[in-house]
Order: sequence, then C-alpha cells, then structure tokens
Amino acid sequence: MRMKSVVALDLGGTKLSAAVVDSTGGVSGLLKLPVARGSMCAAAQQIAAVIRESGAGAAGLIVPGIYFAESGNVWAPNLWGHDQVPLRAELARLADVPLVIDSDRAGCVLGERWMGVARGLDDVVFVAIGTGIGAGIVSGGRLLRGVSDIAGAVGWFALNPVHASGYAERGCWEQESAGPGLAHRAGAACAEDVVRAARAGEAAALGAIRDAARYTGMGVANIVSLLNPAMVVLGGGLMQAGDLFLDQIRASVAEWAQPVSARQVRIELTQLGEDAGLYGAARLALDALSK
Amino acid sequence: MRMKSVVALDLGGTKLSAAVVDSTGGVSGLLKLPVARGSMCAAAQQIAAVIRESGAGAAGLIVPGIYFAESGNVWAPNLWGHDQVPLRAELARLADVPLVIDSDRAGCVLGERWMGVARGLDDVVFVAIGTGIGAGIVSGGRLLRGVSDIAGAVGWFALNPVHASGYAERGCWEQESAGPGLAHRAGAACAEDVVRAARAGEAAALGAIRDAARYTGMGVANIVSLLNPAMVVLGGGLMQAGDLFLDQIRASVAEWAQPVSARQVRIELTQLGEDAGLYGAARLALDALSK
Repeated sequence: MRMKSVVALDLGGTKLSAAVVDSTGGVSGLLKLPVARGSMCAAAQQIAAVIRESGAGAAGLIVPGIYFAESGNVWAPNLWGHDQVPLRAELARLADVPLVIDSDRAGCVLGERWMGVARGLDDVVFVAIGTGIGAGIVSGGRLLRGVSDIAGAVGWFALNPVHASGYAERGCWEQESAGPGLAHRAGAACAEDVVRAARAGEAAALGAIRDAARYTGMGVANIVSLLNPAMVVLGGGLMQAGDLFLDQIRASVAEWAQPVSARQVRIELTQLGEDAGLYGAARLALDALSK
Repeated sequence: MRMKSVVALDLGGTKLSAAVVDSTGGVSGLLKLPVARGSMCAAAQQIAAVIRESGAGAAGLIVPGIYFAESGNVWAPNLWGHDQVPLRAELARLADVPLVIDSDRAGCVLGERWMGVARGLDDVVFVAIGTGIGAGIVSGGRLLRGVSDIAGAVGWFALNPVHASGYAERGCWEQESAGPGLAHRAGAACAEDVVRAARAGEAAALGAIRDAARYTGMGVANIVSLLNPAMVVLGGGLMQAGDLFLDQIRASVAEWAQPVSARQVRIELTQLGEDAGLYGAARLALDALSK
C-alpha cells in the first residue's frame, strides 16, 4: 500500500521550514530556508516553488500571525506590516495542489495532538510563550476560531487589577511573563540572559523567573477553569527553558483554577518543540486529502 | 401544518418551571411549582409527572449545577448535596418520551441564542452572576463541554495576584463580584441591600458596585480575549440590577481585552431573564426531535 504524503510548511518570522510528511508521521526531505523578504509576493513564490518541487499532492501551511479563514487573508506583522495580505489568493494562483493554511497557534496544537505530548486528546490547549503569548485551542475535537479568527489571544488576560505600564500595548499576561517582560523584571538585556543567570544560580534571575511563572500559572489556571481541558501544552521560545518554570506554573494552577479541573488537567512541556507547527501543517493537509 | 411542541423544564434550587413550547418559541401552560424536596427520587417523580401531563412528544430539562453527559449523572449541591446522582437513569425509568438534560449555564446560552438577545449568533457566552458566577459557551455553533463537562467555571478566574480570603473556597472573580462578595464589600447584609442603597444614591454602595463591576469587566475581558465571541450576555440574579453595572463592565472590557476582539464584541444584558433556561431546555428537546 502506498502511503499518502503531503508537504508541510512552517513560515516563521525569519525562516521557512518544509518537509514531506506521510500519514504515519514519517518525515523526509526536511528543508530550512531564509524567508524571501520584501513582500508577500516574494514569499508566496518561494512557498509555491517548495510545494512544486516536493511533488506532493497536497500542502499545509502555517503562518506567523493570524489566518482569516473566510477571506484567506493573513496578518503577519513581523513579515508584512500591520495590514492583512491576500496570501491564499496569491498561492492559489501559483500552486496547483490543494492547500490549507492556518495560524501558527493552530498548527502547534494540531501537531502536539497528532504526534506530540497530547496524542489523541480532544480537549487540549497549546500556549506559546516567547516574545509574545498566544494559545491554540482544540475543544471537543474541534479547533476554536472565534467570530473573527482571533480566539486564543490570551496574552491579553487581565491578571492584576492595578493597570501597569505595558499592559495597554501588549496585554497584562504578556507584559508580566513573556520574554521581554521577564528580561525587564530581572534588569537584563534579554530573556536568554535571565535563563543563563538562573542556571548559574543567581538569586535575582531565579526570583524573576518565579514571578513570571506565577503569572503564567494564573493565566493557565484561567484557561483550565474556562475550558476544562485534558491537557495544556507549554511551548514557544521561552519554554525551551521550561524546566525552570514548570513546577511554579503547576503550583499556581493548583492554587487558582477550579479545583476539579485543576486536578484533572495535565500541564506539560511541548514534545515537538519547534517542529510542532510543521506536524500541524501536515495534519491540516492530510485531513484535507481525506475529505 | 401542525407545529412540533415539546415540554421544557427548568429545575432550580427551590422551584421547578415548566411549559409547552413550540418550534416558533410559542409558550403555553407555564407552570411554577416548589421542587419536591428530600431526594432525587422525589424530584424525578415530580418531573416525570409534569412530562406525562404535558402530553408532549419530547422533553428538555435544565438542572442547577453540572450535568455529566456520558454518565447521565447530575451534581446539584443546593438540591442533593455534593455527591452526583443518577438523574437520567431514574427519569428514563419514569418518563416514556425522549428526554435531553443539560446544565443551567448551557440552557441559558442556548435560550438567549434561540429567542433572546443573541439570536442566531454562533459565538456567544452567557455569564450568570448571582450568588455564584458561571458561564455557558457556544463557540463555532457548538456548546463547549470540556473533558469532564465542567467548562465555564469562570468564577475561578484569577484576577489578582494577591491571594485574598475567600478565593480558595469560591474563586477570585466570584469572591470579588458575586452577590455575597458585593455585600461584603459594602458592609451590607445582602446584595439586594447594596442595590437598594445604590439606587438611593448612597456613595458606599455605588463604590462597591463600581469595584465589583471592574472585576467583572476583567473576567469578561478574559473570556473575550480567549474566545473572540460575537456577544457576551450577562444574566443571573445580580444582573436584574444590571443597569447599575453595565457601563463600568463595558469600560473595563475595553481597557483589558485584546483590542480587536474588544471592539467587535457586544456586551449585553439578558433579554429573557429567568426564562432563558426554559427556552434553552425547549431548544434541546426540539433539536433532539429533529435528529
């Protein structure tokens, strides 16, 4: 029996990852390229070339930002500024196979649910914590989109009634717990420096991580109380150092969330790391093929 | 053409409401009875008798607490203590028509979506604020249940990192904003006294309402950022005085929620009031009939 294969593409802020993935999760021809910068059209040509060269019969693509399912537009400020761009229409012109697009947060939760730590779960939330904070949500086996495709903007969670500097620009949870906020808390240049100092046992860095993780525990607790998921998966750049955060996050969830949901939920670090989106992109394409 | 009719039942902590409802939302034979107390069996016999006497071909029932869809058990502490009781099994024995059961929070959101202020919307959250706080959620046209049917426990939202008295027993948002918390805030015996004093222009009562509404705005903002709904409907006992709260709640949502979602969402008071659950119960039964 020949296995179905698709091409999965994960478009990031700086690099494009792609691979051919079969229906058992087998990966071949993994490829990482710098994103063709300058315009959406340049990136679309690059993506279409990768799809063509793969020879696959369907493609799944994850974008760094928001995908609007009705219009096919994409909002990806790190690549193309703050206006939406018509990526689906452009790719439909250039690529001649079925193509499914979605946001990176959707890709990550679908990836972990297919081949990662959340295998087979119908109620799971992926929380990405890096320079920002966002969530991909599967509830009752379905991806939640919201009325205008921006569900999961949890970095805006209100977790402190005293409105502090930065909350209005990026949201309270994101200000308190994402990479830049963590660096600010510790008086460091960047989150990586805080992680390094914490691993060296420096008290100020360890304190900053504990405080950021407390807020993250409150945020995750709110997700748990509202959605009653079987698992919350923590990923994103900062969670590469997730071992420094996990115990405090779990303790805060136990302290704050609805008690029955808090006992039932598992809080885990990503198993797929930066490949989560790629697996999610593959899953989108495979689902499209089997329809 | 004969219209389909069902019997809708809303079991509360003290009274049982029932009516025959047709597929256009027409209501007849509205009935309110004190709940047969003492045991689940007594209440089940009362419910079965109402169903039989209605002559309807299907029944929908809303219960005050949690309905567990897989087991058919109900957790309704105000009626039957803290253990789950096998209500569906008992009613299946006593009633001879198709019967659908769900939680009051589910009933309210389905009711408002069918015949109330959220008519026709596929992404809507009903937040009940009374002696407790809980939410019924429809996202993408489907009711969210969570992995163990306790999604919507938003009274447990963490909204203040300083863990105060009462948070561990009933959750932070509920402690800060539900009826008993509001009374405590104003040094009053009950929430009704605070509402009366506020209507008389007393500054302390008005201040307590403003502070409780600020927390409610934070809680609603978190729902808006996470779910990106078209509408949040505010109901429950305390929202009978919703006009005193609404402006402050809307202002807090605008202050805290993801900005695009905050601009798109409508925050409205219940249109159906205490009949929301009854309409929701009817909708459940009508949907079962049409399957």
